Amino acid sequence: MPKALLTDLYELTMAYSYFKRGLNTPAVFDLYVRPPVPYRRFLVFAGLESALSYLENLRFSEEELAYLESLGLFDRHFLDYLRNFRFSGEVWAVPEGEIVYPGEPLLTVEAPRIEAQIVETYLLNTVNFETLIASKAARVLLAAGEEASVVDFSPRRDHGEDAAMKVARSAYLAGFDGTSNVEAGKKYGIPVVGTMAHSYVMSFPDELSAFRAFAEDHPRPILLIDTYDTMAGLEHAIQVARELEAKGRRLLGVRIDSGDLPELTQRVRARLDEAGLSYVQIFISGDLDEYKIRDFKAAGGVAWGYGVGTRLGTSYDLPALGGVYKLVQDAEGPRIKKSPGKRTLPGRKQVWRRPEGDLVALRHEVHPGRPLLARAMERGHRLLPPPDLAALRRATRERIFALPEEQRVIDRPEAPRYPVFLSTELEKLQEHAAS
Amino acid sequence: MPKALLTDLYELTMAYSYFKRGLNTPAVFDLYVRPPVPYRRFLVFAGLESALSYLENLRFSEEELAYLESLGLFDRHFLDYLRNFRFSGEVWAVPEGEIVYPGEPLLTVEAPRIEAQIVETYLLNTVNFETLIASKAARVLLAAGEEASVVDFSPRRDHGEDAAMKVARSAYLAGFDGTSNVEAGKKYGIPVVGTMAHSYVMSFPDELSAFRAFAEDHPRPILLIDTYDTMAGLEHAIQVARELEAKGRRLLGVRIDSGDLPELTQRVRARLDEAGLSYVQIFISGDLDEYKIRDFKAAGGVAWGYGVGTRLGTSYDLPALGGVYKLVQDAEGPRIKKSPGKRTLPGRKQVWRRPEGDLVALRHEVHPGRPLLARAMERGHRLLPPPDLAALRRATRERIFALPEEQRVIDRPEAPRYPVFLSTELEKLQEHAAS
Repeated sequence: MPKALLTDLYELTMAYSYFKRGLNTPAVFDLYVRPPVPYRRFLVFAGLESALSYLENLRFSEEELAYLESLGLFDRHFLDYLRNFRFSGEVWAVPEGEIVYPGEPLLTVEAPRIEAQIVETYLLNTVNFETLIASKAARVLLAAGEEASVVDFSPRRDHGEDAAMKVARSAYLAGFDGTSNVEAGKKYGIPVVGTMAHSYVMSFPDELSAFRAFAEDHPRPILLIDTYDTMAGLEHAIQVARELEAKGRRLLGVRIDSGDLPELTQRVRARLDEAGLSYVQIFISGDLDEYKIRDFKAAGGVAWGYGVGTRLGTSYDLPALGGVYKLVQDAEGPRIKKSPGKRTLPGRKQVWRRPEGDLVALRHEVHPGRPLLARAMERGHRLLPPPDLAALRRATRERIFALPEEQRVIDRPEAPRYPVFLSTELEKLQEHAAS
Repeated sequence: MPKALLTDLYELTMAYSYFKRGLNTPAVFDLYVRPPVPYRRFLVFAGLESALSYLENLRFSEEELAYLESLGLFDRHFLDYLRNFRFSGEVWAVPEGEIVYPGEPLLTVEAPRIEAQIVETYLLNTVNFETLIASKAARVLLAAGEEASVVDFSPRRDHGEDAAMKVARSAYLAGFDGTSNVEAGKKYGIPVVGTMAHSYVMSFPDELSAFRAFAEDHPRPILLIDTYDTMAGLEHAIQVARELEAKGRRLLGVRIDSGDLPELTQRVRARLDEAGLSYVQIFISGDLDEYKIRDFKAAGGVAWGYGVGTRLGTSYDLPALGGVYKLVQDAEGPRIKKSPGKRTLPGRKQVWRRPEGDLVALRHEVHPGRPLLARAMERGHRLLPPPDLAALRRATRERIFALPEEQRVIDRPEAPRYPVFLSTELEKLQEHAAS
């Protein structure tokens, strides 16, 4: 569980001030990604499970309270309040795996002001990051295509341990086929995959001995053929494939991690086919992302599998999402912030998905289309059990591959953005709400 | 503690193969950052504490072993081996906070091959990330200057919980003054800082009431003055400063988070000075990094404090370091990998810091200068207790501000890189070592 103190200090200093002044009437905060978001034509929402689990379990331990006391910023009454803290609010949210767009509320917290304030930092941390990665993973999938097998190889470059776990889950949620992260396999039931490193090949007297040993010790071997010379390595792999056939087994594939991948994979594919090994798959890796996979395919590269690491796990071309958490309603009524470029949308809201584009409306309005936000938590208790991640993945993957062509393009930033409209009522309220 | 299964599956499949074949003689692996590294003229090494703590405490639980068994990849003997697994090797490393360069070994693991292999993923994960952030933080400090106060405001955009903790620690290690992350304050003894959000100001009938309330409830108030109109907000802050003076207290500062910061801060500074409040400091925030701080100062901006978030915590212009972990010696003697552009340096090594540039040599060589690598762990036990983080910070900060001018420049990628030489012996070995 995340620590209660994994929060910005100002959440607690503000909460303390609200506490002392009895400013604890219900407040409504929206979490959304501030537009525009560069390099992304759509986002895949993720992080709701982390958010709900956090809200249900948030407690301040005695050790944490002692530390807070030591800061000299808070009085005993407030520390007692924290000692008994439970999140008692309501949450509306988009389901994980839904396609969403900047400017749309993704998660709405309605709770006594102090509670709603204290949870801000963690909610932003987890939704920003998980949505960032699920959205990046979707782009990698679109570049690789529906027939390809795409797996997460990122743990060594992810930003710490929790990042490695969330990258594996978010990528799988979007539709990846597996991860190299064993703990993520255990925790989330994601298929785990792995081949061998160059150091394995170097640990044997020669490449052929290494391949034979690995094929003997692994039921579904993929051999890394580029430690010394890729085409010579391929011949060793072919020899091992034939030895496996003699035992009624099959070589699953060969992996190439360096060199001119479009050219090498074509030569490797041709040689494998010529050798009667058309079932042996080609797996590539090495700083891959959606752009490199697109270029690889455009240059005639042939691969069945892609291992995607650094650039997925850090969302390399866009390493952060500008998700924010803003007060939109309180006892005074709907509220807005009017700073230029940072204008907020007042009131409790709903998002309607319609063929002509999304409509952000006030929650009580009814429009044609499909409402995206649903109540996910009431009085501090989640309303539904955690979803089946594998089923969620299938649905998300289908949704991504069913996106219209203009949203599936990987670059072309000049193309029209998906339209997000405001309802007339919301526009009127935005003009008149108190700032 | 990090989980034992937070590792790439291939570490375990390779380890299994070594286990079955009795390939468990000592092997030596170097961890280093592959050159060139874009946008960085130097790196600040961090992550050693995480690495040593991991190596000392790595254990496989029964639950983890049961999961591994369920994969159908490993036999009972290997699972029994893992049940009793303890890292028993030796580690040489650069001290945390040392200035280092791409291509230099930062950490060397010498252990039975299986142990050295299994720890690869976690060591890379933590050293890559912590060094990435400490190096980014150093650049932010250089841009802000020695007199400025610079703090970490990144938790809401960091890549998960562990990232938020490691960003706070790595930035503080480099010389930051504090963090907004309360848990990092508790765990590492880092000073915690925080002001207020716009939603706090909006939670009161008017800005002046909000400022008065906050100043009453907080011993060292910094007031956020840009919720409505920055210059009008400043007048409210001045009024509160005068009210505090009447009570023998002082307003610590004002924060500005939006607008034309160079112009606004000049006007705010002039107005504060005119009002006799030259002790009230100006604190700025809002997507800051080394480039923006440099441009802000070049445009005449005046600030005492900088809150740096997203772009520090994600190392936005360079979201990953290409740290790798390579076999350099085993029972066969020194080893190299000869792939083009990925050539490794064979053998056990030492790095000598000299005025004319660093020298990478074999460990037994003696050269003038200061050796950077020291033995940090022997037979699986660390040789020194964890360092005093505050003392380490002071030393690192001094080292960064004492760097020669050509390394302190933030961009100018065309300027000469710091030279890293190889000793004659190492060069000869590289020619002759077995690949």
